[in-house]
Amino acid sequence: MPLLTRIRGPRDLDRLSLEQLDQLAGEIRTFLVEAVSKTGGHLGPNLGVVELTIALHRVFESPKDKVLWDTGHQSYVHKLLTGRQDFAKLKMKGGLSGYPSQAESEHDVIENSHASTVLGWADGLAKANEVRGKSDHVVAVIGDGALTGGMAWEALNNIADAKDRPLVIVVNDNERSYAPTIGGLANHLATLRTTDGYERFLARGKDLLERTPVVGRPLYETLHGAKKGLKDFIAPQGMFEDLGLKYVGPIDGHDIEALESALARAKRFGGPVIVHCLTEKGRGYQPALQDEADRFHGIGPIHPDTGLPIKASGADWTSVFGDEMVELGKERKDIVAITAAMLQPVGLKKFADAFPNRIYDVGIAEQHGAVSAAGLATGGLHPVFAVYATFLNRAFDQVLMDVALHKCGVTFVLDRAGVTGTDGASHNGMWDMSILQVVPGLRLAAPRDADQVRAQLREAVEVKDAPTVVRFSKGAVGPAVPAVGRIGGMDVLRAPGSNVPDVLLVSVGALAPMCLEIADLLDKQGISTTVVDPRWVKPVDEAMAPLAEQHRVVVTVEDNSRVGGVGSAIAQALRDAGVDVPLRDFGIPPRFLDHASRKEVMAEIGLTAPDIARQVTGLVAKLDGRFDRSAAQAVDSVEPARD
Amino acid sequence: MPLLTRIRGPRDLDRLSLEQLDQLAGEIRTFLVEAVSKTGGHLGPNLGVVELTIALHRVFESPKDKVLWDTGHQSYVHKLLTGRQDFAKLKMKGGLSGYPSQAESEHDVIENSHASTVLGWADGLAKANEVRGKSDHVVAVIGDGALTGGMAWEALNNIADAKDRPLVIVVNDNERSYAPTIGGLANHLATLRTTDGYERFLARGKDLLERTPVVGRPLYETLHGAKKGLKDFIAPQGMFEDLGLKYVGPIDGHDIEALESALARAKRFGGPVIVHCLTEKGRGYQPALQDEADRFHGIGPIHPDTGLPIKASGADWTSVFGDEMVELGKERKDIVAITAAMLQPVGLKKFADAFPNRIYDVGIAEQHGAVSAAGLATGGLHPVFAVYATFLNRAFDQVLMDVALHKCGVTFVLDRAGVTGTDGASHNGMWDMSILQVVPGLRLAAPRDADQVRAQLREAVEVKDAPTVVRFSKGAVGPAVPAVGRIGGMDVLRAPGSNVPDVLLVSVGALAPMCLEIADLLDKQGISTTVVDPRWVKPVDEAMAPLAEQHRVVVTVEDNSRVGGVGSAIAQALRDAGVDVPLRDFGIPPRFLDHASRKEVMAEIGLTAPDIARQVTGLVAKLDGRFDRSAAQAVDSVEPARD
Repeated sequence: MPLLTRIRGPRDLDRLSLEQLDQLAGEIRTFLVEAVSKTGGHLGPNLGVVELTIALHRVFESPKDKVLWDTGHQSYVHKLLTGRQDFAKLKMKGGLSGYPSQAESEHDVIENSHASTVLGWADGLAKANEVRGKSDHVVAVIGDGALTGGMAWEALNNIADAKDRPLVIVVNDNERSYAPTIGGLANHLATLRTTDGYERFLARGKDLLERTPVVGRPLYETLHGAKKGLKDFIAPQGMFEDLGLKYVGPIDGHDIEALESALARAKRFGGPVIVHCLTEKGRGYQPALQDEADRFHGIGPIHPDTGLPIKASGADWTSVFGDEMVELGKERKDIVAITAAMLQPVGLKKFADAFPNRIYDVGIAEQHGAVSAAGLATGGLHPVFAVYATFLNRAFDQVLMDVALHKCGVTFVLDRAGVTGTDGASHNGMWDMSILQVVPGLRLAAPRDADQVRAQLREAVEVKDAPTVVRFSKGAVGPAVPAVGRIGGMDVLRAPGSNVPDVLLVSVGALAPMCLEIADLLDKQGISTTVVDPRWVKPVDEAMAPLAEQHRVVVTVEDNSRVGGVGSAIAQALRDAGVDVPLRDFGIPPRFLDHASRKEVMAEIGLTAPDIARQVTGLVAKLDGRFDRSAAQAVDSVEPARD
Repeated sequence: MPLLTRIRGPRDLDRLSLEQLDQLAGEIRTFLVEAVSKTGGHLGPNLGVVELTIALHRVFESPKDKVLWDTGHQSYVHKLLTGRQDFAKLKMKGGLSGYPSQAESEHDVIENSHASTVLGWADGLAKANEVRGKSDHVVAVIGDGALTGGMAWEALNNIADAKDRPLVIVVNDNERSYAPTIGGLANHLATLRTTDGYERFLARGKDLLERTPVVGRPLYETLHGAKKGLKDFIAPQGMFEDLGLKYVGPIDGHDIEALESALARAKRFGGPVIVHCLTEKGRGYQPALQDEADRFHGIGPIHPDTGLPIKASGADWTSVFGDEMVELGKERKDIVAITAAMLQPVGLKKFADAFPNRIYDVGIAEQHGAVSAAGLATGGLHPVFAVYATFLNRAFDQVLMDVALHKCGVTFVLDRAGVTGTDGASHNGMWDMSILQVVPGLRLAAPRDADQVRAQLREAVEVKDAPTVVRFSKGAVGPAVPAVGRIGGMDVLRAPGSNVPDVLLVSVGALAPMCLEIADLLDKQGISTTVVDPRWVKPVDEAMAPLAEQHRVVVTVEDNSRVGGVGSAIAQALRDAGVDVPLRDFGIPPRFLDHASRKEVMAEIGLTAPDIARQVTGLVAKLDGRFDRSAAQAVDSVEPARD
């Protein structure tokens, strides 16, 4: 890599010729395919923004100027050009984050992986520059998909308001989304200026048309329609100019010279301006280009030549849910499904194929997913909105005020709940079981295994007068954890070894195997433990307080923020019942979690069987008035203490 | 009221002539002014939609067709036409709700008072009709202001997607917002069809121009700019048609014949269609028309002839905050303020007048308020975003992921926190102290009086690396509640009467006087009580656990949902410290609250001094093992028990 390795910072790009820049782009693509095929990561999006990122760093002076990335997963090239070329531990503990990171570099600003935020950040930064009399530039890169989010519209409405406050918006319009829209844009060609960029665009458009696959899937038209509306809106005569935003484009996003020229013009303009760039997701990497589904949007480790995954994935929570949805769809014609631009990742692809008229992709628009679900339910259907747990935060008000207040039977299925690990702080689904506690009437299920996912989903869609939530973890689902009994609505996973049980251990969701392990460890200390899985963690089962009263200590373990979570709710239920048995609640501490594997994160925050068993042993010993240090140490010996 | 009183339902409108309909409109205006001047309520908006509502109910067949109102406060006319003409107890206990209410009428759907939701509801209902093969119509009425909310954009993007799914969107564009935009619309006149409605619009536009006041306020241009962008966007050649939405308009919103004609055309169209109606807020009522600020948007009781308030309002929480912001603005040039379309109601008008370059009205766009605040803080300023507590729910994800994750020094000032009363379920600010608990690093203040508002606001804006929140109640602020001592960061409001205190009473915010009253009542039972105000309720003060340990019972009282609130947080802090003193937490029960006065609501949910004293007395007696029924009854005698 004769060029890439010599780039230590953006200014090292200044002395390169156009030919060298093209060579550099090629080196970066080779680097990305080799590096990301080893670690996994967001390959397709980054292959699409190589030239764009180079041009941005040639024209703007980061970090004085702020170069902002929406969603952030397309910042790998930006990292390479700002002194970060060790990708060996990408997204792993101690390695580079998969998103921008202020701790990594002064060139990074937005760490949040949630979409559609960049224009709001840019508006704020531009306003701050104005108030402080600074002439630094603010550049926001946003994908066409992220423009479907309401935050983007709110920001555009504000940005357009100040005609002389400089702000450059780069719309990274990637080819896959773009192709179907050429017809719409074509209607506007007569008004386009004849520029170099425009001529290239014409040639490129023809090329695209010829390569556009014929797509016959029923859902496709739906998606196409939404995109088409969006793209007309990007067209020169569309809303941007109506709003008063200067428009530059469309620009070939792989032509560094054209990009630099357009960005330089935008930089000089002195007000808010859109630079509309056409890029190709997966550019230069054949396996990505041939992937109809998502052009290698985010991948695990692959063979770099073939693009095939290195390890086949087994059954996961998502597919268990997805398969059961197809069964439910057959049985009940009133069940419809909603996704916010993540049909495949949330497991609804099979449902969409089977019931093309009962699936709604609302775009990156969780608010609309929830509020339209209220309408669907009021209209007599039962919507199932499948969404990553972390993204439901976007729709909290709609869950509360539209779905719950109106007693709508809507089921929210929260995928990737709990500690997810390598995607870092903003991808962990660790808040849902806390904030949803306050929603009146809402029922929340945390299934512990595949059987429970199916069973609890079925129970959820039976509820007609309140929101229901089914939340589960990311990745492979473990073996079945059988119940040995039932108390109230709760499954008993382990009966106590004695008639005078010490500990009631409340296991939430996928942590059941860990809780059984804790019980085994406690057993070895002579501490008799009952393990129950409440199944429905909200409301707290009525049998909980009487059961707790039969024990000396209650311990709750959940894969969610400790604050206001299931443990807190059970503690409150016990207080309300006048049951003042001491309770200890284990969960995720109230801080943001750095990226690392799920296992590493769990160890770091003390959510492991030995850690919890040790603390419970200490507590029981304290209650006994005979604290026994050797007992706690015995637990330590089960597994080496972490450093 | 010879006509109005004979209208028992929408179909009674069918037999009226146009002349009679105009007469009916006049009767309704007279009724509204007389009724709402007695009770208070949203007068201006309803005066603006009299003809529109009549026309809607003439053309559509509610309740089979769904007529949906965004924000809902302009549904008074709708109530009058659907069998609800007793406005004597409007917004009062047992009277009509100030919003649509499913419990009141089968003609009502959306009860939520939060803006911008109606298009999402309509999309869901229209989809349900399609799936179920029903040909009923869905009509959504949305104000121009509400279109600035991201939810509206998300919904439009979805609605436009289905060209043959019928849905009528009525944009209720009221004159005040409309007037500045005539220039923008004029550019599009050449493409407008010549219709009756259009000709009237022309005449009307001229009239409007002549009556438009010259406005010199500095903020005006900002607002004007935002509105202008929005209005161009409504123009026939703007985004609606680019998106593929049929556009009908502009229509004179006070011409019943023109409205009926346009709505009938829209009804027949068979796909999504916009009907753009121009209305006049406060129409027909001179005091409202002369009110520059908000045309009597929402009022208390007034003299109907003069429009003057019946009782002068004293010092309130909002103005204490607003005045202190002006002082802070003078002292610190880095302080800027944000409002989401509520400059006056949140008390920022004086700040805006004093510092016109440091105030941002972002429209009805709480998400943008929060995310742009993150940008402002990152750019070196300290933003103060003042917003109703209930509306911050809209920006939960942005507070968490943009402000807190990035350690931005942003202060959120939550007005109308706690039970607000007459505006009903969705206006109570009863969730903030629960959901914000999970936000890492966030500090939350609940000032108990005016002095504390000022002091804690000042402490809040000193925090540079985390979000801070200052939350206070609605309405008049009570007299100062002095501290008699300090423990850690907590104010002691009352020292215990004995050396062996029984109860630690933790008072949150404005409930301090009530807590002192509780302590007096307990005192009479021989129960010695310490009262502390933590001032900052998040994080829990480090002195809390040691102090709690000196008492036999801890009691928390907060004007917030019991679930996950301050009481829960303190309970967890005590558990974490190994302090297993029994705790009882009093707050708002986990259900939605019907409209009634704050006092009535507080009594109904048991948040009164006698109620709480009675329960605490019982608990202490139980701990003593000597439950004394007469003691609890003695507390009863302080105030008659509620029925």
